[in-house]
Amino acid sequence: MHDTTREWHLAERPQGEPDTDCFELRETDVPEPNPGELLVRVTYLSVDPYMRGRMSAGESYAEPWAVGDVLKGGVVGEVIDSASEAYSEGDLVTGEGRWGEYSLLDADEVAPVDPSVADQPAYLGTLGMPGRTAYFGLLEVGEPKPGDTVVVSGAAGAVGSVVGQIAKLNGCHVVGFAGSDEKVDWLTDDLGFDAAINYKSTDDYSAALAEAAPEGVDVYFDNVGGPITDAVFPQLNLDARVAVCGQIAHYNDETMPTGPRKLPQIIAPRAKVQGLLVGDFVTRFREASQQLGQWVAAGELQHRETIVDGLENAPDAFLGLFAGDNIGKQVVRVDES
Amino acid sequence: MHDTTREWHLAERPQGEPDTDCFELRETDVPEPNPGELLVRVTYLSVDPYMRGRMSAGESYAEPWAVGDVLKGGVVGEVIDSASEAYSEGDLVTGEGRWGEYSLLDADEVAPVDPSVADQPAYLGTLGMPGRTAYFGLLEVGEPKPGDTVVVSGAAGAVGSVVGQIAKLNGCHVVGFAGSDEKVDWLTDDLGFDAAINYKSTDDYSAALAEAAPEGVDVYFDNVGGPITDAVFPQLNLDARVAVCGQIAHYNDETMPTGPRKLPQIIAPRAKVQGLLVGDFVTRFREASQQLGQWVAAGELQHRETIVDGLENAPDAFLGLFAGDNIGKQVVRVDES
Repeated sequence: MHDTTREWHLAERPQGEPDTDCFELRETDVPEPNPGELLVRVTYLSVDPYMRGRMSAGESYAEPWAVGDVLKGGVVGEVIDSASEAYSEGDLVTGEGRWGEYSLLDADEVAPVDPSVADQPAYLGTLGMPGRTAYFGLLEVGEPKPGDTVVVSGAAGAVGSVVGQIAKLNGCHVVGFAGSDEKVDWLTDDLGFDAAINYKSTDDYSAALAEAAPEGVDVYFDNVGGPITDAVFPQLNLDARVAVCGQIAHYNDETMPTGPRKLPQIIAPRAKVQGLLVGDFVTRFREASQQLGQWVAAGELQHRETIVDGLENAPDAFLGLFAGDNIGKQVVRVDES
Repeated sequence: MHDTTREWHLAERPQGEPDTDCFELRETDVPEPNPGELLVRVTYLSVDPYMRGRMSAGESYAEPWAVGDVLKGGVVGEVIDSASEAYSEGDLVTGEGRWGEYSLLDADEVAPVDPSVADQPAYLGTLGMPGRTAYFGLLEVGEPKPGDTVVVSGAAGAVGSVVGQIAKLNGCHVVGFAGSDEKVDWLTDDLGFDAAINYKSTDDYSAALAEAAPEGVDVYFDNVGGPITDAVFPQLNLDARVAVCGQIAHYNDETMPTGPRKLPQIIAPRAKVQGLLVGDFVTRFREASQQLGQWVAAGELQHRETIVDGLENAPDAFLGLFAGDNIGKQVVRVDES
């Protein structure tokens, strides 16, 4: 064990698109666990689009980081010093930790990682917060019925790829928007999507959607916003449900983004459009984790991670989310040794 | 009784804002009722913003009128020839009829008018379709709780004025947007609104709303759209509900209206935004009419109508809706003799 640990701090707030100047790697002493805490050697850490909001002052639902704060996010790691009876040294756990080599976690706030179900990175994606977001967002806000057409933006991402697969498990016709042919092929060939549209090589999203979803759209799970969403709204069916999970196309906007007005478009279909935060379902996280784990163990739910090696590359991994570099969940391998 | 009746037909489809060229007054024979029908001498007819949609081809939820079709809408009238056992000559009824001096109505589809509860015009407003729209839209989509702040656009209109009063009956803090000082005074002095904002004389809607609704907005009942709605969305509270009933600011738009994107604004508050059509609640119309009638009879719900005299002025009355000429419900008095 090292005596010191490196960890990423917020160096400055981004203006528009963040760059590496926003991040600073600092070295500090490895802490000792207080009663109830675990000292964890981080093996993988998660970078997620919502973190962009925490980098700005008061613009998001998650509490903003202060300049100079250590960055935090989902981690998986090995307990190397336990001050809790719940976990022992050598146990693998996942929870909310620091972008660093070591992190103190409350034993009450971690979940065990079972390598017999899936490799460690999956616990930051399909079996972690993104998977639970997909589970509750689709089932509780989207309310899919068999035969419904479900459209997902950001379909090859950590959340979208789970949304589409759960929709298929519910007997839906599933269409995804994604940003490369490789992603499109993964969605249709491996995950069972009925159709997928490469929005970077398609000019007319409306026509492509009308072809892929000939009976209209009953459920739209939106991770993206922008022109994809503009194409979906006019094709909403009667009583359509729209789960607004993310709007990554707009996270770096410096001014108020504008676009076609949606409210005039939802009266005729009586559509319900609802914002979604997974934290609202915290009392049911165990249910979601159990169901997602069962699906993964049974081979009914596939997961995929894009892994960047090295803590020093965590900012680049985060920035890559906005370019769509990841297929499935983007994680950073810190040290799996 | 005349042998002929005058009635308004759609002469041409409007481009943008309609004008009187869109309407043509024709004379035709007064029909005789078939079995189950009533011949009604129209005393009052209703003009409503949603009719703008029916004047265009395929742009609305209501079936478009064909060019040459007779215009239809809510009417009140006296039965002068009955081919139904349900009603007799001299009965006052309300239903969906023609913009004309006489109309055939199905006895199954009319409701009785009780002058002891309210004068005839009220049955086209607070005790008619607009009142039911307010009742179901606020209670079923808006779901107001005591102490909630409810904001209404088009607050002095036929629907909005009822929304605000029902919200007050439910113990809410109620704020209305309306288009004249006279309307504002009516809302606050007579109807019990806690505050009202004259959007035609106010520059900064956001600041005015923040002052009128210092605890934020829990329910927004939107009849208007446009800049008023743009000001409300950033002030939505956690778990806010938005009932999208109308978007009169946009009904005459010839191109897709644009504005600040709303979806990025609803994630943090997890707001629910839902389109509303009163027809979806048809199985509960009796419940609504009874409750609205009880409130009116008890003096707990006030109604007001703006009356234009003469069938020949019906198009002007309709066009005046878009200028905000009406306070309360706009009706046309055809012949109350």
